[in-house]
Amino acid sequence: MSLVVVGSVAYDGVETPHGKVDRMLGGAATYVGLAAAYFAPVKIVAVVGDDFAQEDVDLLASRRIDLDGLERVAGGKTFFWAGVYSADMNDRTTLRTDLNVFADFQPKLPDAYRTAPYLFLGNIQPELQRNVRSQMPGVQFTGGDTMNYWINDFRAELLATLAQWDFLLINDSEARLLSGEHNLLRAAAKIQGMGPRTLIVKRGEYGAILFHEGEHFIAPGYLLEDVFDPTGAGDSFAGGFMGYLAGQGIKPAAGKANVAELRRAVIYGSVMGSFCCENFGVDRFRTLTRDEIETRFRELQNCTSF
Amino acid sequence: MSLVVVGSVAYDGVETPHGKVDRMLGGAATYVGLAAAYFAPVKIVAVVGDDFAQEDVDLLASRRIDLDGLERVAGGKTFFWAGVYSADMNDRTTLRTDLNVFADFQPKLPDAYRTAPYLFLGNIQPELQRNVRSQMPGVQFTGGDTMNYWINDFRAELLATLAQWDFLLINDSEARLLSGEHNLLRAAAKIQGMGPRTLIVKRGEYGAILFHEGEHFIAPGYLLEDVFDPTGAGDSFAGGFMGYLAGQGIKPAAGKANVAELRRAVIYGSVMGSFCCENFGVDRFRTLTRDEIETRFRELQNCTSF
Repeated sequence: MSLVVVGSVAYDGVETPHGKVDRMLGGAATYVGLAAAYFAPVKIVAVVGDDFAQEDVDLLASRRIDLDGLERVAGGKTFFWAGVYSADMNDRTTLRTDLNVFADFQPKLPDAYRTAPYLFLGNIQPELQRNVRSQMPGVQFTGGDTMNYWINDFRAELLATLAQWDFLLINDSEARLLSGEHNLLRAAAKIQGMGPRTLIVKRGEYGAILFHEGEHFIAPGYLLEDVFDPTGAGDSFAGGFMGYLAGQGIKPAAGKANVAELRRAVIYGSVMGSFCCENFGVDRFRTLTRDEIETRFRELQNCTSF
Repeated sequence: MSLVVVGSVAYDGVETPHGKVDRMLGGAATYVGLAAAYFAPVKIVAVVGDDFAQEDVDLLASRRIDLDGLERVAGGKTFFWAGVYSADMNDRTTLRTDLNVFADFQPKLPDAYRTAPYLFLGNIQPELQRNVRSQMPGVQFTGGDTMNYWINDFRAELLATLAQWDFLLINDSEARLLSGEHNLLRAAAKIQGMGPRTLIVKRGEYGAILFHEGEHFIAPGYLLEDVFDPTGAGDSFAGGFMGYLAGQGIKPAAGKANVAELRRAVIYGSVMGSFCCENFGVDRFRTLTRDEIETRFRELQNCTSF
């Protein structure tokens, strides 16, 4: 079943200890879409300027990614972000953020998108996220991402948005900020009380924790020999998670019936996040095969079972 | 089979967000011994002053802990350490370190200890660790812990010591410092090349990774509702790990035959480290039962399988 992904499509400039790329395809919706398309058909909602290159359109279109919702603003420029990573790649410094056409992004869903059963809302203004949700009254599994800025300065809007979500996928520091609890078990309980019955807390290289129906699942991070560029790893995680659920047609509503599938979805998230780091930007997804994904899934099984 | 544990027996003063204790039983050999004694008979080698309280002797003696190797220095004072933890308990500041009788610690093994098949060497001067090892020519599984100070300032001595060890159990920052590699896979390969064929890298709340025979095992950290006092958690991990191996009579030499048992030993380490944090100092071990340990082992299985 198909998955609608709303978020940024952008250009990034990235410097890591392994090298420097001045301008390459990036953005949350790009990473989520490319990762999810290995598992299910994807429909992207985003905005770009007329500087958006045909080769980047071609890459997305060559996968199961519908670009009818990719708005092009004539005379506008595509969102640009540049940053540099620390030597251990645990920190990054933003050098430049030019929102450009993304500053006025008003997501518009083509009619054919409105009946999709799965919706992933990337990190944009909570009110815009709510607006998109309201355009899909029949959606069956909705959720997304947010960030510190919305948690701190748009709390009321964010809470209204979360109240309508089935799941939330954020990192550990955001979970602590949103809940006001340092302890992750307490933080998760509070956040689930805000709406999302399914919560995934990402822990960077350490993996993620899934909270669902009063239980939790600790998912490992895959140990990589080389991390070339962590940009987009969290979004690729989201793509693997949502893509797997959509591909299998799983809607984790009430009950524990689908817990095993949700756990597998989190592992596919971890797998896709790890592949993302193996090359600059989206480059790893140019060559990655479904067989490699399955092999890594089994590797994670082998290195965690006891 | 029995396990010899060499290291500090001390008094600690600890302050965490949950409270403050001015003076309580502590020390690496204490935590390792108390945790390991749930699984196997333990023989402690340590030194204390004549201020060491009878009730603390009684606690240790009430378990399967042989104290023939606990030297008492007349007129001396027991090692004392005091520290305060940060609000999130990820950092601690040392307020006081009085080595006292520990400054001149020369481990002496009673004759009855020399034939024990298992030896755990706590974090003391590498040359002393090597000296103890040489007093146990028939030992079948030897290893231990070290710290930044020895890695930086006693590197040659430490390398000579490690060359004779079957396993090393250190935390991730120490593994990086010892190997000069940030990446854990590369760090592990280098450290295994120094001698220990079995390496356990502790990752604090995130658990640990076991490296053995060209494979690795990612062990989770147990999610606690409350961390009262993390003091001794790493040593309790070591106690669970070594205690389980000794109790089962497993000697992970060449070959992959015992990989499953080694994995279980690491999980018991994670379990014992988590219990340690549930109360101040060694207090949790005053009430902890083997049944509770088994229950938590199964909980970790449940919350990691997919």
